[in-house]
Amino acid sequence: MRYLLKCASFVDSEYESNGRLRTADILVEGDTIRRIADHIEDAPAGETINAERYLVTPGLVNAHGHLAMTLLRGLADGVPLQSWLEDYMFPRERLLTGDDVYVGTQLCLAEGILSGTTTFADMYFFEDDVARAIEEAGVKANLSTGTASLGDEAGKLQRAEDFVVRCNNTAGGRIKASFGPHAPYTTTPEFIGAMFARAQQLGVVVQFHLHETRGEVAAYAEKYGCSPIACYAERGYFDAPPRLVAAHCVHMTQRDIEILERAGASIALNVQSNLKLGSGVADYRSLLASGINLAVGTDGAASNDNVDMLEEVRVLGFMMKGSTMEPAEVSNNRLLSMATLGGARALGFDDTGVIREGAKADLVFWDTDDVSFCPHNDVVSHLLWSANSRAVDAVMVDGQFVLRHHELLTIDIDRVRFEAVQRAHRLAAL
Amino acid sequence: MRYLLKCASFVDSEYESNGRLRTADILVEGDTIRRIADHIEDAPAGETINAERYLVTPGLVNAHGHLAMTLLRGLADGVPLQSWLEDYMFPRERLLTGDDVYVGTQLCLAEGILSGTTTFADMYFFEDDVARAIEEAGVKANLSTGTASLGDEAGKLQRAEDFVVRCNNTAGGRIKASFGPHAPYTTTPEFIGAMFARAQQLGVVVQFHLHETRGEVAAYAEKYGCSPIACYAERGYFDAPPRLVAAHCVHMTQRDIEILERAGASIALNVQSNLKLGSGVADYRSLLASGINLAVGTDGAASNDNVDMLEEVRVLGFMMKGSTMEPAEVSNNRLLSMATLGGARALGFDDTGVIREGAKADLVFWDTDDVSFCPHNDVVSHLLWSANSRAVDAVMVDGQFVLRHHELLTIDIDRVRFEAVQRAHRLAAL
Repeated sequence: MRYLLKCASFVDSEYESNGRLRTADILVEGDTIRRIADHIEDAPAGETINAERYLVTPGLVNAHGHLAMTLLRGLADGVPLQSWLEDYMFPRERLLTGDDVYVGTQLCLAEGILSGTTTFADMYFFEDDVARAIEEAGVKANLSTGTASLGDEAGKLQRAEDFVVRCNNTAGGRIKASFGPHAPYTTTPEFIGAMFARAQQLGVVVQFHLHETRGEVAAYAEKYGCSPIACYAERGYFDAPPRLVAAHCVHMTQRDIEILERAGASIALNVQSNLKLGSGVADYRSLLASGINLAVGTDGAASNDNVDMLEEVRVLGFMMKGSTMEPAEVSNNRLLSMATLGGARALGFDDTGVIREGAKADLVFWDTDDVSFCPHNDVVSHLLWSANSRAVDAVMVDGQFVLRHHELLTIDIDRVRFEAVQRAHRLAAL
Repeated sequence: MRYLLKCASFVDSEYESNGRLRTADILVEGDTIRRIADHIEDAPAGETINAERYLVTPGLVNAHGHLAMTLLRGLADGVPLQSWLEDYMFPRERLLTGDDVYVGTQLCLAEGILSGTTTFADMYFFEDDVARAIEEAGVKANLSTGTASLGDEAGKLQRAEDFVVRCNNTAGGRIKASFGPHAPYTTTPEFIGAMFARAQQLGVVVQFHLHETRGEVAAYAEKYGCSPIACYAERGYFDAPPRLVAAHCVHMTQRDIEILERAGASIALNVQSNLKLGSGVADYRSLLASGINLAVGTDGAASNDNVDMLEEVRVLGFMMKGSTMEPAEVSNNRLLSMATLGGARALGFDDTGVIREGAKADLVFWDTDDVSFCPHNDVVSHLLWSANSRAVDAVMVDGQFVLRHHELLTIDIDRVRFEAVQRAHRLAAL
């Protein structure tokens, strides 16, 4: 399919320095942004779209989450992480079936697409069912099986590896697979080291929770004499590391940050989850000043409680400015970049996250006729600080629309809502 | 007009203790909730509405703002309060005309209605033009002229009083008028004292900015030897105070809090504005533990950058839990109550903010078929933590719909958007 977008306004790579949106024609051919120019002749085949009313951005990339947890949202609003996990989530997760995960993932993807997300991260269970939902929905994802190391470590490692080999680079490259050792407090260092090594050999990502709560870091210090990050460094796991996506990273020392930077790790920040569960506030000044690739994730909707990436990056911006008491701490363009390019880099989708010739056509069409974009003083500012998902008119992934004029094209939302309510009811009743 | 709402689910006064939504029929007659019962016979005249798919809440009350500043949003994202005011806002505000304020207010009201707000606070200029916009839009507001005391104090006081007398309790009671001495850093203590006294005599509210930045409190300490609040207390201004709405209140000592509590003041919290401008984070634990009536405001859209009250109360909830690292610090019901009843009490609309027989019919109809409310585990939780304005289907004020099926009934939004863009363009070009 060919789409010619006439007069699209979009953020290009020079926006940060010149503060001006570029307005041009964009030709999408197949899955790729083929050409960007001031004037492109109408394509002989394909569709020409008047894009004047839209702000076009790269698709948002949700760099950390547990997709099917949408089924569990609203079950436990006032409890801290450990109780939330052990008293509310784990007992229900033991009851989950593959079909539950499939439906919960579909619900999550619908919500994500409606709010402008084209690429997702997942760390959960029944990942083959998750992959099925991703493939059908037409979006992109990097999927991992969340793995704790308590018992049968060899078997778990093998099954995780089997999934990676089976699933990586499927769905025409839209699905990547990764290792997902859950967290320092649910794994041994040796298990982490083994997964790092296998991931490095296979050339895939490791996504894991890291330094999320103060208690988790303190418990490690008591047991191992250092933080999880320092412990892994001491054992050499970061010497030739795979591509790492460390989620949360709320409680880190300057030394922890330097270790992750040297390891070339990405951090997926989850500010809303950390606030709502009372986990704390990261040292944003040090993170922004480091060379670490920063990405943004919503975490699972059971803690957050949605997968709205625009809301997530807005609250992240509030916290970067507010916790440092420095309103200039982060620029609009950097925030937008973290929610797009930063996530794409973290998850290994190197040909997306930016609007340029040759990149994959993963695009969001924001309707600037929405009152939240009025009076058009600075539409990028209005996007980041005023608009919400109501303004998402269309979403394109690999050159195919998955949402158009607010209508989901790849998910039967009425069926999914009906099934999700039934399944959630069964799980909630526990 | 009569409306019979069949099978409406809503939060009643027992929700906090029993955690159950009430589902019942609600009869609205004229401007009032006449009856609530498990079954009410169809009204002979009027309209019967199947309300099964809605969560019905009291209208949201935006307890602090500068409505027409929507025209100025997006002009200055990375600057602290004093520079934001002096370098960006004040120069443009000097150019504002009454028609600018009228159009800017209409834009703000449209945005507010679309996100579920029925009652607004305003402190700005050309308040007669603001009143015209409020009256036409069919919403409620408490309006004040923002007043600095530098020069011609007697004249300013007189003009403020003239406005209060002219405007209070107009538009069938939908408009209240108040005094609006801007802030400690733009007024003398004597001016504040004089406005308190006149407001007390006239039985109207005083709304003002208070203890917003650390610098403002420090400057007062240098000049007067104490904080603004302590200074006013020492001078006896709180001995027989009027109804006070103190906005921001970020930097307060325990003694400041006790003074405001004894004065029966309400606080309008503006968490997003305080974060974005780097003003700081309030001591929420002390505020929640005090007996002060807490309300929620968005501040002007030039700092916030929208007037979405659901977003505002969600970020407030995040900060109450996150800054204290205690997820149980505030309950869902208390948050919802701050955004409704707390604001209604603050602004003097005592017959609204709650769904009960005899109260004014100010209602929001949230569409629980929106994916953000799926899977219906706890729709109040989903409202507070997952949904956004996309789910606002209808808004009723004094028994009249101002929004229905997402359509604004009292504001010609296409004309307002067109005019707002023209006027903002002139102001931005400064």
